[in-house]
Amino acid sequence: MSRDFNFSPGPSMLPESVLRQAQATMLEFDGCGASILEISHRGADFLAVARQAEADLRRLLSIPDDYAVIFTAGGATTVQALLPLNFAAPGQAADYVVSGHWGKTALKQAAPCVDARIAASSEAGGFHDLPGRAQWRLSADAAYVHVTANETIHGVEWRDIPESGNAPLIADFSSSIASEPLDVTKFGAIYAGAQKNLGPVGITVLIVRRDLLQRDGQPRAPILDYRAQAASESMLNTPPSWNWYVLGLTVKWMLDEGGVEEFARRNARKAALLYAAIDGSGGYYRNEVVASARSRMNVPFFLHDPALDTVFLAEARQAGLLALKGHRVLGGMRASLYNAMPEAGVQALVDFMQEFQTRHG
Amino acid sequence: MSRDFNFSPGPSMLPESVLRQAQATMLEFDGCGASILEISHRGADFLAVARQAEADLRRLLSIPDDYAVIFTAGGATTVQALLPLNFAAPGQAADYVVSGHWGKTALKQAAPCVDARIAASSEAGGFHDLPGRAQWRLSADAAYVHVTANETIHGVEWRDIPESGNAPLIADFSSSIASEPLDVTKFGAIYAGAQKNLGPVGITVLIVRRDLLQRDGQPRAPILDYRAQAASESMLNTPPSWNWYVLGLTVKWMLDEGGVEEFARRNARKAALLYAAIDGSGGYYRNEVVASARSRMNVPFFLHDPALDTVFLAEARQAGLLALKGHRVLGGMRASLYNAMPEAGVQALVDFMQEFQTRHG
Repeated sequence: MSRDFNFSPGPSMLPESVLRQAQATMLEFDGCGASILEISHRGADFLAVARQAEADLRRLLSIPDDYAVIFTAGGATTVQALLPLNFAAPGQAADYVVSGHWGKTALKQAAPCVDARIAASSEAGGFHDLPGRAQWRLSADAAYVHVTANETIHGVEWRDIPESGNAPLIADFSSSIASEPLDVTKFGAIYAGAQKNLGPVGITVLIVRRDLLQRDGQPRAPILDYRAQAASESMLNTPPSWNWYVLGLTVKWMLDEGGVEEFARRNARKAALLYAAIDGSGGYYRNEVVASARSRMNVPFFLHDPALDTVFLAEARQAGLLALKGHRVLGGMRASLYNAMPEAGVQALVDFMQEFQTRHG
Repeated sequence: MSRDFNFSPGPSMLPESVLRQAQATMLEFDGCGASILEISHRGADFLAVARQAEADLRRLLSIPDDYAVIFTAGGATTVQALLPLNFAAPGQAADYVVSGHWGKTALKQAAPCVDARIAASSEAGGFHDLPGRAQWRLSADAAYVHVTANETIHGVEWRDIPESGNAPLIADFSSSIASEPLDVTKFGAIYAGAQKNLGPVGITVLIVRRDLLQRDGQPRAPILDYRAQAASESMLNTPPSWNWYVLGLTVKWMLDEGGVEEFARRNARKAALLYAAIDGSGGYYRNEVVASARSRMNVPFFLHDPALDTVFLAEARQAGLLALKGHRVLGGMRASLYNAMPEAGVQALVDFMQEFQTRHG
């Protein structure tokens, strides 16, 4: 059994202790006589798991009681599709602040069901910087303002998301949730696919202020209704229960490690180490994002000579450094440094990069 | 480690060999240096898993090439919500044949987005029988006709679903798919949550004739568009990749065991054994479904004295027979006999029932 340092943007590296617990319960869970994968989501054994996961997530992220936590399937993209149906009246506007690929996706998913407006975009500059608050042109009547906290592909991150005024702020935190302390009360809603910082693929979290759940929204099936989901503890139908369980294990691991304050410190050190290696390479490696907007979670970088990309990836793989290939939209390389990536992994990457430069300089 | 006979209606019992494979790959998959839970869904390793699962499912169910297979999240209920958006024009009618709780659910999920009509219903008779073809009142202009192949709660099963005429037949096969040979070509679409006969919770299969994917449907987000999902190999966004993998293991297991013909034989024997025990109990146990409509997969039954329900469940649990409690809609007991339930499990249940009757007669 060999476990390498996995820089995949998601599904991504998980703590080994979490995987070992998932492994240990695969045939029988806690004296149940069956796997956690086989027991009813409505039975006492799973309900305890589900509720503990929610309680732990509330503790980890300091989520106040006036916010509901909904666990759902379909990924962040499905949340993006359902935001207007749940939170915008027919024909109403919604403002989108676009700072990268996923902001564009959020707008595209919403567009069939809302008057989706680009309030600001940094696309003209290649998404190398954030569109600052002064550039936001908000609608007077918007149902909400949508932002992407961290852009997984373009490696651009809001560290202090501006206020949105009257309309509630809804933020996609898929790739940076739980990476540092977060003031939930600034937001009307926060959502995140779990497969980056919260654990396994196949489950998504929506944290939503309860007053927003009172909005009528638009005609939609009961299963797509977040008010009903919140009222049923996310069990209108069979939820992805196993994935929920592994999310709970991961959240518990983050609490045990010291919570978001501790991960903020680790993540700051990891990002600083990698950006310093890139910036100190004399142009051999290059990150194009403005320093103040650089993501701590996803670091895209380019070799000065793209002809070396294939060699770099193959040698990295040999060195036990996985999944460094950049997204097809940008090319080049990308290292994702989520909570489960240890500092030793980033050190190993930096060492490899310097050694590679020496050998192929 | 103790594994009992688990009669849960879903999530439900899985083959031990499948769980052992999932367990073995939890820390590292196939020399990847990472768990199957941690690798990119777009990488070669996972793509091979995903495509093999589809190829094996096509072989298991004899799915012709003119049908697409879509793997999706959100359960069968989400499919029910998306059927009208994908396959009905705005304002168009759709006919629903209602033979139990899940047929009603299908209609309820569709109703906000289609003129959903009850073409036939056996509710007046307590869902103890199927609404025969002669009772179906089909619309001339229906987008589709919806049926529920097996009603998990009411224990009613169509063994030979009637033709629907001009409108394509769409069938919820959640709790009976792969339990016996199936003529896919009779249907416009078939869908099933995996957590009963196809494997793990958290993934759903939609098998749809490709010409239906050419329908315009209604305005909807790209992520909710089945045509786009089919074109992208179900990877418009991050799919529930781990669940897909375990589905693949389960499908492979079914092929190795002899395919749907073999499971048809086993399932017939299991159901016959349990119904004979109920019918031969002199009224101590009671199943209320008309013999010709009895489900082979889910057998609801009642003790003559409901005051004994709690004792029955507790003693069954002690005897290693899990999750026999009936759904809250009906009360009483229910035994689910999916493909992974061995004949020995049903024999153990029948033995226990007879012994219980002797002790508490």
